[in-house]
Formats: sequence, structure tokens, C-alpha cells
Amino acid sequence: MPRSTTSRAGARRASTKSPKRYVFAFSQGRAEGSKDDKNLLGGKGANLAEMCQLGLPVPPGFTLSTEVCAAYEAGGGSFPKELEAQVDAALAKLERQMGRRFGDADNPLLVSVRSGARVSMPGMMDTVLNLGLNDATVRGLAARSGQPRFAWDAYRRFVQMYGDVVLGIGPDPGEEFGPFALALDHAKRERGVSEDTGLTAEDLEALVRTYKAIVKRRTKRAFPEDPRDQLWGAIAAVFGSWNNERAIAYRRMNDIPGTWGTAVNIVAMVFGNLGETSGTGVAFTRDPATGEKRFYGEFLMNAQGEDVVAGIRTPLSIDRLARILPAAWKELNRIQKLLEQHYRDMQDLEFTIEDKKLYMLQCRVGKRTGFAAVRIAVEMVREKLITKEEAIRRVDPEALSQLLQPIFDPSDRLRAKKEGRILTKGLNAGPGAATGRIVFATDRAVARARAGEPVLLVRVETSPEDIRGMKASVGILTARGGMTSHAALVARQMGKVCVAGAGELAIDHKAKTMIVAGRKLKEGDWLSLDGTSGEVIEGQVSTRPSEVLARLFAKRKSKKPSPAHEAYKKLMRWSDEVRTMRIRTNADQPDQCATALVFGAEGVGLCRTEHMFFEGQKIDAVREMILADTVEERERALAKLLPLQRKDFEGIFRAMGSRPVTIRTLDPPLHEFLPHDKKDLATLAKQLGVSTKKITDKVHALAELNPMLGHRGCRLGITYPEITRMQARAIFEAACNVAKKTGKKPRPEIMIPLIGSARELELQEAEVRAVAEEVFRAKKLRLPYLVGTMIELPRAALLAADIARHAEFFSFGTNDLTQTTFGISRDDGGKFIPDYIEHEIYDGDPFARLDRAGVGRLMEIAGREGRDTRPDIKLGICGEHGGDPASIAFCQSLGLDYVSCSPFRVPIARLAAAQAALAAR
Amino acid sequence: MPRSTTSRAGARRASTKSPKRYVFAFSQGRAEGSKDDKNLLGGKGANLAEMCQLGLPVPPGFTLSTEVCAAYEAGGGSFPKELEAQVDAALAKLERQMGRRFGDADNPLLVSVRSGARVSMPGMMDTVLNLGLNDATVRGLAARSGQPRFAWDAYRRFVQMYGDVVLGIGPDPGEEFGPFALALDHAKRERGVSEDTGLTAEDLEALVRTYKAIVKRRTKRAFPEDPRDQLWGAIAAVFGSWNNERAIAYRRMNDIPGTWGTAVNIVAMVFGNLGETSGTGVAFTRDPATGEKRFYGEFLMNAQGEDVVAGIRTPLSIDRLARILPAAWKELNRIQKLLEQHYRDMQDLEFTIEDKKLYMLQCRVGKRTGFAAVRIAVEMVREKLITKEEAIRRVDPEALSQLLQPIFDPSDRLRAKKEGRILTKGLNAGPGAATGRIVFATDRAVARARAGEPVLLVRVETSPEDIRGMKASVGILTARGGMTSHAALVARQMGKVCVAGAGELAIDHKAKTMIVAGRKLKEGDWLSLDGTSGEVIEGQVSTRPSEVLARLFAKRKSKKPSPAHEAYKKLMRWSDEVRTMRIRTNADQPDQCATALVFGAEGVGLCRTEHMFFEGQKIDAVREMILADTVEERERALAKLLPLQRKDFEGIFRAMGSRPVTIRTLDPPLHEFLPHDKKDLATLAKQLGVSTKKITDKVHALAELNPMLGHRGCRLGITYPEITRMQARAIFEAACNVAKKTGKKPRPEIMIPLIGSARELELQEAEVRAVAEEVFRAKKLRLPYLVGTMIELPRAALLAADIARHAEFFSFGTNDLTQTTFGISRDDGGKFIPDYIEHEIYDGDPFARLDRAGVGRLMEIAGREGRDTRPDIKLGICGEHGGDPASIAFCQSLGLDYVSCSPFRVPIARLAAAQAALAAR
Repeated sequence: MPRSTTSRAGARRASTKSPKRYVFAFSQGRAEGSKDDKNLLGGKGANLAEMCQLGLPVPPGFTLSTEVCAAYEAGGGSFPKELEAQVDAALAKLERQMGRRFGDADNPLLVSVRSGARVSMPGMMDTVLNLGLNDATVRGLAARSGQPRFAWDAYRRFVQMYGDVVLGIGPDPGEEFGPFALALDHAKRERGVSEDTGLTAEDLEALVRTYKAIVKRRTKRAFPEDPRDQLWGAIAAVFGSWNNERAIAYRRMNDIPGTWGTAVNIVAMVFGNLGETSGTGVAFTRDPATGEKRFYGEFLMNAQGEDVVAGIRTPLSIDRLARILPAAWKELNRIQKLLEQHYRDMQDLEFTIEDKKLYMLQCRVGKRTGFAAVRIAVEMVREKLITKEEAIRRVDPEALSQLLQPIFDPSDRLRAKKEGRILTKGLNAGPGAATGRIVFATDRAVARARAGEPVLLVRVETSPEDIRGMKASVGILTARGGMTSHAALVARQMGKVCVAGAGELAIDHKAKTMIVAGRKLKEGDWLSLDGTSGEVIEGQVSTRPSEVLARLFAKRKSKKPSPAHEAYKKLMRWSDEVRTMRIRTNADQPDQCATALVFGAEGVGLCRTEHMFFEGQKIDAVREMILADTVEERERALAKLLPLQRKDFEGIFRAMGSRPVTIRTLDPPLHEFLPHDKKDLATLAKQLGVSTKKITDKVHALAELNPMLGHRGCRLGITYPEITRMQARAIFEAACNVAKKTGKKPRPEIMIPLIGSARELELQEAEVRAVAEEVFRAKKLRLPYLVGTMIELPRAALLAADIARHAEFFSFGTNDLTQTTFGISRDDGGKFIPDYIEHEIYDGDPFARLDRAGVGRLMEIAGREGRDTRPDIKLGICGEHGGDPASIAFCQSLGLDYVSCSPFRVPIARLAAAQAALAAR
Repeated sequence: MPRSTTSRAGARRASTKSPKRYVFAFSQGRAEGSKDDKNLLGGKGANLAEMCQLGLPVPPGFTLSTEVCAAYEAGGGSFPKELEAQVDAALAKLERQMGRRFGDADNPLLVSVRSGARVSMPGMMDTVLNLGLNDATVRGLAARSGQPRFAWDAYRRFVQMYGDVVLGIGPDPGEEFGPFALALDHAKRERGVSEDTGLTAEDLEALVRTYKAIVKRRTKRAFPEDPRDQLWGAIAAVFGSWNNERAIAYRRMNDIPGTWGTAVNIVAMVFGNLGETSGTGVAFTRDPATGEKRFYGEFLMNAQGEDVVAGIRTPLSIDRLARILPAAWKELNRIQKLLEQHYRDMQDLEFTIEDKKLYMLQCRVGKRTGFAAVRIAVEMVREKLITKEEAIRRVDPEALSQLLQPIFDPSDRLRAKKEGRILTKGLNAGPGAATGRIVFATDRAVARARAGEPVLLVRVETSPEDIRGMKASVGILTARGGMTSHAALVARQMGKVCVAGAGELAIDHKAKTMIVAGRKLKEGDWLSLDGTSGEVIEGQVSTRPSEVLARLFAKRKSKKPSPAHEAYKKLMRWSDEVRTMRIRTNADQPDQCATALVFGAEGVGLCRTEHMFFEGQKIDAVREMILADTVEERERALAKLLPLQRKDFEGIFRAMGSRPVTIRTLDPPLHEFLPHDKKDLATLAKQLGVSTKKITDKVHALAELNPMLGHRGCRLGITYPEITRMQARAIFEAACNVAKKTGKKPRPEIMIPLIGSARELELQEAEVRAVAEEVFRAKKLRLPYLVGTMIELPRAALLAADIARHAEFFSFGTNDLTQTTFGISRDDGGKFIPDYIEHEIYDGDPFARLDRAGVGRLMEIAGREGRDTRPDIKLGICGEHGGDPASIAFCQSLGLDYVSCSPFRVPIARLAAAQAALAAR
């Protein structure tokens, strides 16, 4: 188990050879551990030890290390033999420190038992308070405190908590609430009071009896009266809960190894419910929502632990404490400042005040929104708490997407939820929030959008024919498809809100209706999509652009300063200074290029020419080309396409200036461009002046069993080199025209897709270079350009050494490379990938996060062997993984020159690349 | 250029530092080279030199080496400067030897000029005879020979040949025959004679003038009169023809590097047409058709070179020579024996007798049929000419398929050809010959077959639903699909004749007709398929089983000895002694197993369970299982399937005895088992008692965009583990039942398909082992079994080290591995793979011959890393490549334990594996 060399507990353990040490004590001013011992003591234990070392007021206690958890499991649920003696010794010491004894009927020591893994983890047994109470000690507590009601309340809480979390007594069959809650309710109704505080000591005593009867009925055993039995039961429950289903599920989702284990913290009880000079609360050293530097939190007087979060009584804002208990407030404020300085990060604190005396029960790094994460990181640099590099490391790149997407008005969304309008949940495929009218077809979406209506395109799944409709819509909802389905890909690239694969939708395209959650919605009805959560909400929910987004695209600078925007800009600037990989964008159109530039893109890494084909006149010429019977006919059709394509590329080159633009030659199989239903076929036939039969035959002839593995990519260029020549001509003529008009130097990089052998590229390269020479001669202008290929087939990776002879760059097309390496079609994988994640076959969707072992190994081979052949070969990635932080880190380790991602992910990629560069230092 | 170190020419060249030697002379008893100099002198030149060294009567001459060819090309069509002087010197020497001079009007030296590459190669310029004749020397030849007609005939032939092959004068536009042939015809008609021999010296003189006028008209230049111009023209034509289209195409098809080049042989003319004591012929030292040891050949008296093969006069059998020219016969017979002994292989000889004197013009290893190849190799071992190992090396494994397939009666096939009944040619996907009635649908094929008719199933392409129809048919013809299409795969496995991908077929399934070569054929018409050549023949052609096949399957031993059968058996026995890899078969049914055992299979390497699913009741239960909504429903359907599957496996285990049987769990996507047309859906609904809508919805829900990359293979077993459990139960129960009944020890090897990660296999292995334990306990019997996986995805190969933790064997599924590594669906690749071979992107179809660079590299990684994890892991191959000799050689180099192939390829694999083992020694 790797641990910091500065670990005190570690050092001590190493010196005291045997027996193995499992228990580590702490009390104010001294502790057998520190914050660096998280692996051994868990997060909670390590921070308690640290606070003790800092001299802060922490109730004394001890921690059973995470190694006990492993030993407990290995021993099939029995504890290591050394443990009991060590616990006994620690308990004896605690008794001495507190001057009380465990199970002493006169002066009982009570403890809390809490789990604490390296990282906070829901799903595990959390907390048992007041442990040590029984029918004898409760009377001692009552006598000592002079508050019988307090004592019985503590006892009642203990039995309830213990019964619930240790003994696992849940609701009876058919009941919504557990038997303890029902009994409490019953008691309150009987006494005619609405709050617990209305119950007397006697009421509570009766309740304890009822509770114990419940325990007896449900467990067939009496409630354990012996405090040591209670203690060992609670310890075993914590360790056992490490492997309960919820905990395992959480670990799987969050990549936490099962071997880490949890620690158990046993701490002397202090009481916030000992009267009006006692209280308890939680606080953050900065505002976790906005990141603003202000002490932020809530507390309740005369309350214990869970009362604050349970929401039964309304807690007070933390600054109110100054008036209620000024000394405690002053001390707490001193401590929160000290802790933030000490930890150099925003802290989340728990405290209890027992009869005016403040105790710190926990401190940890506080969770925060994306907005807060950026602002805190940047402001802490200004405050010299951390370095720029630390600031970069601290912000989760994904958090940035929060800053850049429109959001639903929080109160409005809450109302929708209360009204039961959240219909279903799909994949959060395109973040942001969108409200619009349901439309089930592209044409009608375009028409309604023209009429000024916000529309949501709802489809079973989308295809390239829907591009116009997607563009016209504010959001896209599909019933099928995963995170990298067509809808998801295009939506993210367009920056559109998208919820994909909402399997509960039953769409009837003919009737123009859909049924979901038992409700039937028809075309034109209002719907809202939360692309950040995946929720589909009936009706309208008001949205607003985030402040950062609004400012980035503002035509003029606002005078009012925006801390969020300032922080974003600063973090991005620092990231750019640090990172070594370039960030490009996947963009097919000038407006996408413009957006990407605002987000900081340095070039285009993937311009898909086929998306352009679906617009206006172009699709007619494309179809004419496809239906051509001879090379001559095809060239005539291509001649019509040439000026249209050239105009497309001019727009892109103009937008990108002298930055590199990687353009991929035609990739999809030709049948994707032909209509499939009878009516459309007839229309097309009429338009082109040929028989419907001819077109139907062609559609039939072009049909493929596995289009993904069919006649596409460079295979089209090999069969029809005239297509490659037309595209090359359009590119080079456009580049020359823009160069002449703007004085910039467009840098086209022509990328040949789906290469599987060197000779394919050799042939296509020859076509491209021949056209380039012709155009340069004709235009009397010469521009630098590159010819390269995508590495998107396993064979291309395996033969990279050969292929590099003809390629000036490799761009890893990890979407297709993942499909072929796994043998999984991303269009069809949705049917079993969820099963695969469920069964822990995959850690996650391999189309979202690069599979290092398989796909990554091929990339490594290709990169290394490609460079052996051509040391200056440029390496990049243009698959969807180019926008995923973990995948970007892997790209850095491979030494890629750039990553390319959809425009809205450019900021995320910039930050992730900076983190990767720091990690590689 | 690597050459044998024993090369005399080589040794000499090395010693005479400069100038570089390009010309090598030979004459009876001495030569500047030998048979080991094929790389330098070409096959023809090397053998001429060898025969000279042996003291055989060879007309003197000299060879321009293959290095001239390379230099000629490198020089852009100009000769190395040293060449002319070397040719002059060789010519002068030849003149001295012959006592004649080149261009001497009184006593002219005439020569032949012939190309000669390392291996014989059609498509190149072949031969010019009588070179050196012109208007002056023809008269000298006439005077010296005393035969003016002979001289003018020689001149006429020379101008015609030279005009044709050197000057490239082909037919005029619109003409079928060339102008020389037409002029000759015209002359014969004018003189009223039917044969050339009817023309007089004067007629021939006139014809020469006509020929020269043709040359002038077509080339705009006079026919070269200067013999030296003639010579250099002919030499240039030979070297030029090395790179003509036909030669390049041939080289590409036969893997001959363009760098090899050709040599040119210039040999003094001897004349077989000098009267009735002269003649010319070709002969083989053994019968090239049957392999029988007898001197075999043909000759013509008073004839020159091409007359024997041209077929104008009917040649005589070689033994007739004994009576016509006994001395020459005796000499020839002595020489043929000597040459076969010397070369230790059957020789193909050319000879000329000039006025009773025998000259040897060529000798080379003779081409032979598969039958002859086997018999000659085996008999030469008996004769102690060669070793067993050499015999194994000498037979092309593919040649064995000739011995095992039914064949068309040769004369009947010739008649069909003459009658123009050969309609088209497809891929020779399943060798053999079949005649039957055309049927376009499986049901009708089954019905007609039951009625006792031989049927040919004709489909655009086949699918698993056609299995019954294929089984019922004697042959299969498809319009689409390649060498590894469904039709081809299944046909080869069944041993059925198959012509696949005959693209010219236009099939109208509704009308039950097909149109091909302008003819319309309807269901029930007779058709014949030559699966060995790919020809589709209208009407009936009679077939017969080969003798070897008939004997292998004969119920009782024939008393009449069959040399072919004896030779086959012996060669197989020797192969089995030598090879180190095991040979298994891909078989799904007991009869296939039985066939494979006759052919020598040692186990089953791939038993596809899904093929069984299409039979009788099984398909109903399968469909019920697919349509199940719950696990319980599915298990009910599976329970019905269990006894049926168990019976299938019992049949296979019974057939295979104690040999290993690898059974693959369910592989294809479930939608393959559902009907797709409306009527069938309605029928099924009725049968299962559910609504048609339910079934239609299920078909719709199961549809996949890329089924090859969809929910199939072990992914089904992960989603529906109950399917794997049912199959495992059927296998183990069947194995136990057979063990009890027969006393044999069935050895099931359960193979999980489409594994991409270790965890998949771990889960499926657990299911299989749990069932095995249950069955063994219940049956009170324990059998050895293995659990392993196919390696058929790139990721499986890349993660083999991991996967091997759970796999006791790997079987390379190179069909799918090729599909995913290349990103090519074998169902769709047919559209562009021909273009790819045309453009030399692929050497051949990667689905037929294993791609070593890509797929092979993955296999190498998987084999090596799999063995690192589990040193005793068993490695095999069960893709179609398992039956391809070149791929088998590669498997040997990887150290595989076995190869598995379709039953009819087992003998081929046995021989190929023996050759591979020898090569690896």
C-alpha cells in the first residue's frame, strides 16, 4: 500500500514490527497519524488526526485502519486476532482521557461509530451515535447531565440508528416507512405534538421500549445491552457494508478499487442537544455554489448530528451564530480560516457545540459546482494559497461544461419536478437546457423554426438526412442510440442540447405522437430537455444562458465585472501556457469554426465533407453522381458539385485564417445519400429525369449488410478516383481563392479515411497531389499542404510503418477504431453495452472513454512505428475521445501533437491537456 | 540476386571482374552455365546449358541474361553499352561453330530467338524462328538445302512471326484474324489447296512479298532486311514484352516479382521441315494426365516448331517414331530416360530431327494434373529417384482436390463449349461438377430433391435459412458473394459444388427465371456447374465421381488395383508421419463428421450449433425462445430445445468417438432465426399463438444496422446466460450418454465466440463449468473437457494474455478477425475487393489467404502472449484459412497445435501441414 513517506503513522508502524498495528488513536494536540494517512486511516480518520495535530478541539477517539477491512474480508467476516486487544487498549485510554467508562452505569462513556474510506462514498453504513447506552447507562447519563429527557432522547436515537443501520431493520413489506419512524409518529400523534421536542422523557422511555420490541420481533433477538457487543456489532456492520450492493455499484461507477477498504472511527460523543447553549452545524469555507470567498453554512441549536440535514427544523445561517454564541463563533471562524490555509483548499466542516464549547467533528475538501471550482482555483492563486499549476490540476475539466451551457432556471425546474412533469431520463448526450415544441420530422422542424418557433426534433434515431432538422432545432431527443450515436455526435458538435436513447419513448411517426410515462404528447406540444442530466420534462421550463457563455459571445464588452468569466478566462490562459498538445476542433461549417475559435480552437482536426452534401442543391448533384452509370456521367455530376464544395471550403478557410484545416475526403457509403421511401424515390426520379425503377435498382444494388464494413471511406476514392479529384480541386481552389482575397495562408491538410494498407494511400495521395499541382499552376500560387490519413482500422495501426511512407500525418479515428477493435457497431451496441457495464465487463462505454488496453495499444503501435518511418509525422486524434479528459491524458502519454473535439468541448480539452502536460512533467 | 553457390556461370562472372558479363554461350559438351543458373539464364537457358554439359545434342547458341532485362528497363529501353560487343563475339563464335555466317547470302546462319524467364510465363513474346533470312539469304538457304520451297516456306514463316510478335501487327479493326493469316488463306484459296504444303516455292515467294507489303502498310516502314536489325529488334521485343499488360497480369496472379526479368536465348536453327527424314515433336517422360510411367508425346514429320501444337496436321504418337526413324527414336528414348534420372522429375521435352539427326531444343519440368502429380511423386519414391520428403514437397496440396471431386466427362464438356452453352463464369467456390434442375427457393429445392430430382439451388445470395435447400441440392449458384460468402463456406463444408458471385445473373425470384448471356432460364431447366473452373453451363453435362473418391467411400474393397488411389493413400500416410500439426474439421452434423474422418480428420475444430437450429422442430423452439419476454418464458422454450440439441450432439460424439470435438456456443444475432416476409411472420404468429404485431415488433426491435458488429457471439450468452447453460447441458449430457453407450470417451471442447475481454469469458466459463459439474454429478460420470475461446476480434488478440487466464485453448476465427482487422464485411467486400486486386492493393482475397502483415501479426501477438500466461494453452485455427496451404504454412510458423477446415479440404490440409513441417525443419 503506497503511502506518503512523511506519514507519521506509517513511520511508527514500520518501527513497531509486531504485532501488526490496526488501531490509531487521536486526541487534541496529538494523534498517531495525519492527513497524509488517508490510505490507512480513511479520509475522515486522517483529517481527525490532522486536526488534533493542529491543536484544534476534536473529541478524542481512535481509528480502525482500512487494513482491518481487508483482513475482515479475507477472514470471511472474522477480525484479525490482534484487533481486540488493540481496541481494548484504545478504549481504556479513551476512558482515561474522558474520565468516563464504557458501560459504567454512573458515568458512561458514549461513542460515535462512523465509517470512513479514502474517498467519501455513499451506500455504506455511515454513522451510529450515542453508542454505549443501555437501560443502565441511560440513567447515569440522565443523572450526570441533569437532563433525563436529553438522555432518553439520546437512547431513543441510538436504538433507532442501531436498529436501522447495524441490524438492518427496514420497512415491513408493503410499508413505505420503517417501523421506528412509524412508532415515533404514533407516539407524537398520541401525545398530540408535531415535533420530537414535544415528547417528554417518559414518552421517550416508552418509545425505547417499543423500539426494543420491534428489534426483538424483527431480529428474533433482544437488543444488545452490552456496550461492547454494541461496539463490535457496529464495527462489523461498517466493514460488512463495504461490500453491500449500493457501495459496490458506486465504486464501479467511480472507478474505486474494492481493495481499498474502509476505516472505522470511534469517537467520544459530544452533545449538541444538551440545551440552548449547545448546537451543531455544517459549513464551507467558501460558497460552494458560486465560489465566492465567504464563510458559508448552517446550524441548529439544541440539536444532534442528523437534525441539520434532515430538514425537520429550518437551520440558521452560520453568521447568526455570532449573535447567539459569540465566543464559539469567533473560535469557529478562526478555525475555518486556519483549516483553509492549512489544507489550501475549500473545506467542508462539521462541528458541535456542547454547552458553549466548540468541537470539530470532521473536515474535508468541500464539493462545489463547476462555477465555484473555477473561481476558487483562480482566486486561491491570487491569494498565493496555491500555484497556477495546482489551480489547473484542481478543476475537473468536465466542470467547465457547466459554465458554458444554458441552464434551466432552478426554481422553475423544481416546480416541474413537484408537478410530476419529469417524464423519463435518457442519456445526457448534449449538455445544456432546451425548451421547444415537439417535431417528429426534419422538414417540419425546419419549417417551424423558420416561422420563429423553438423546436425539439424527436426521432427514434437520427441519420445524416436529419442534419438540417437538427440544425433548426434547439434540442434533439432520440429513443435509440448511445453517447456516440449520430444524434449525440452531431448535437455535441453543433453545441445542441441532446437527450439520446430515451428507451421509454414510444414514437408513432405516422400519428405524430409519442407516448411516455403514460402520457401521450403530440407534435407541437411543449417539451423541455435537460441535456446535462438527461431528463425529459413535459411543458416549458425557462432557460437562461450561463453568464460565462453570454460574455464569451457578447458583441461588446460588459462594464460590470463577472468573476466567473474572469476566472474562466484566467484558467484557460494558464492552461494554454502549460499544455504541449494543440487543440483543434471537429467542424464542418464556418459557423461551427467561429464558435470553436471563441472557445480557443487552434485549427480544424476533422472537417467531414459529407455533412455538407445534404444542403440544398448539393444533395441533387450528389445523387446524380451516385446514379451515374459511366465515369463521364459521374464527372458531369461532380462538375456541378465542384463550385458548391469550393464555396463550402472557402467559408471554412475564411473562418480559420492561417490555421490548419484537416479535411476528410468522402467517407460514408453512397447509399446514405439516397432516399429510401417510395415517394421520395419517385420524386428524385422525376427530378433527375430517370425511371423510378432505375433509382430503386441502384438503391438495391448499393444496399449493404454491414455498411460500417462496406464500400466507404477511401474505398470509394479507389473505385471512383474522380470523386477524390473533385474534392481535392474544391479544397485547393478554395484555399487559393481565400489566400488571394484575405492575404492569409490557408493550410489544408487532406485526410484520406479508412486506410488499411499503404498502397491505398499511395494511390489516393497521387490523385490529391496531381490536382494540387494543377490548381497551383493555374492559380499561380503555391500553398503549404499535407496529405495524411486516419488510423481507424486495426490493420492501419498494425501496418503504420508502411503507411507512414505516404502519410504526413496520422489522425486517430478512435470511433471506428473502437468499433473494429471491439467488433461492436456503435449503432447496435446500445443493446448490450449496458449489460456489459452492469456485469463489470467494461468500466464504461468504450465509445466515450478510450480503451487503453486494446484500442490504446493499437494507437501506441501506430504512433511508435509511424514515427520510426517518418520521425516528423504529425499525430492527432479526431474521434469523440478527443474531447474526453481521461482519453486526452492517454493521448499525451502517446506523445500526440494535437487532439480535436467538438467546438463546445474545446475548453474542456484545453484544461485536460494542461493537466496531462503537468502529469507528464 | 541470390544464386546457388555451385553456379558455374556465377563463379565465372565473379572472377572476370569487368566488363559485366551479359552473354553466356553453350554448345554440345560445354556451356557457360548450368541448370542451377535459372535466376541468371532463365529456365530455358539454364536447361539448354545443362543439356550441353550432359553432352546431349543441342544446337549451339547463347543466352542474354536476365540482368539485361533489368538494365534495359532501368535504361528506359536502351541496352547496357557492354552488350553489343558481347553479342557480336557470341555470334562470331556461333558462326565458327556452325560454319555459316549471319547474313551471308551463300551460307547464312539462321537463329531462333526465344524468351525464357525463371519460370514459364504466358503473355510474353515467345519465339521467332528462322531469323537471319532476307531476300538475299533465302536464296542461299534454297541453294544449300537444295529445297527452294523449304527456304521460301521458312522465309514466309519468319516474316509472319516477326511481323506478328516483334512488330505487333494484329488483326485490322473489325477483323477476327490477322492480315498474315488472311493473306495465307487467300493464297491457298487462289491455288485451290487446303494445306500450306499445297503451296509451291513460287506461291510462297509471292506470299512473302504480300507479307512485306502488309508490314509496310501497317508500320510505315519496310521489313528489316539486315539480319542484325532483325536480331536486335527481336531482343528488344522480348525484353519489352516482360512489361506488357498480359505478362504483368500473369505475374500478379502468380506472385512473380517484376524484378526477376527474362533472359533471351539465341540458338542456331535446325530444321524439322527439311523433308521426310526430318521432323519435330514434344514429349513427356511420363503421362502428364495419369502419371503412368510411359514415354508420352507427339511428333510430326517434315514440320517446324509450332506445327505440332497448332493442330493443323494431326501429330503422331511418339512410339510411331520407332518405326519411321529407329535410330533417332532410340537416341530420343535414351535421352528422355537420362534426363528424368538427371533431373529426378518428369520432363517435358522439345526436339527436332534434321535429316535423321536428333536435336534437343528444350527440356523442363513437365506440368501435370493432380492425379499425375500424386502418382509420379509416389512412384518416384518407389523408384528411389526421390525421398518421401521430396515427394511430399512436390505435390501442390490444391492438386489433391482434383482427386476428390466429381468431374465432368471431358468430351461432354467440350461439346457444350462448342455448342456455346457456357453461359458465364463465377467464382470457383466449391470444386467439382454438378448437373441439375434450377430451383430458386429452398422449400421447392427440398421438395424436388425428395421427388428424386437433382437440383441446383440458385439464389442472389444464401442465408442460414437456405441451409436445408443447399443440403438438398447437388450444387449452389449465387449471383453475389465471394470465396468466403455464406454460400461458399457452407458449400465447401458440405462438399457441394458451388459457383458464387456470378454477377451477370439477373434473377427474378417472383417470375422464377434468370437471364444470363441473353438467355432466359426458368425453374426446372437443366444447368451444369463446374465448381472447379467457375463455369456455368446450360443444359446437362454428364459427371462421374473421381476414382479416388469412389474408392475412399466404397463399402467394400475393390479387387482391381487403382494406382491413383494407392498413390493418394501413400502420400497421405507419409504426410501424416511428417506433419506436427493436427488436422481437424469444421463439421456441424454427424454425416459431415463421417466424411471428414474418411478424409483423415483427427477431431472437430468447429461445430457451429446454429446450423442445427434450422431443422424441423428446432426452429420453432428457437423462435419461441427469441420471442420470450421473460427469463421464465425463455427457459421454457430452451427446455424444449434441450433434448433436440442433445440428440444433435449425441450424433456428433458417436461419429467422433474419443476424438476432441470443439463446439461453439450460439453465435449469430437472433434476428437471423426469424422470418422476414409478411406471410411467414403471420404463419409463425399463428403457430406460436401470439399476435403478428408482437412478432413484427420483435423483428423490428432485433434489427441491426451492422449485424456483424452487433448483439451476437458471447454477447448473447452474457445477456441470456440461460442459452449458454442449455447448450452446455445438451453437450455434457450428450457426451455422458454416448460414453455410457459406446465406452468411448467423448472430449467436448466448449468454445465461446466473439470474446473481446477476459471478463466475458470468465462469466461464460463459470456458466459452462457449473453445468458440467451438475451433469457429471447427475450422470455419475466425469469426462475430460476444455473451455476456451475464439480469437476473432482484434481486441481479443491484443488482450490475449488476460483472456488466457480463463481459456484452455484459443482457436483463431480468422474469418471474423479478417473482417474486423480490415474493417471489411465479407458480404459486402465483393463490391470493391476485385478493384483492390486490380490495383494491386491486395495480393489476393484476404478472406481466402491469411493476411500475414495485419491479421497474422495479431495472431502472433495472441499466440505468444497467450502462452506467456498459460504455457500449455492449445492453439488452433478454425477460419476458412485453415484449409489454405499458404495460410497453413503460416500457422506452422506460429506454432499452432492444429488447423481445422471443411471436410473436403482435410487431405489438402494434411499435405500442406506436412510441407510446412518440412519447411520448418
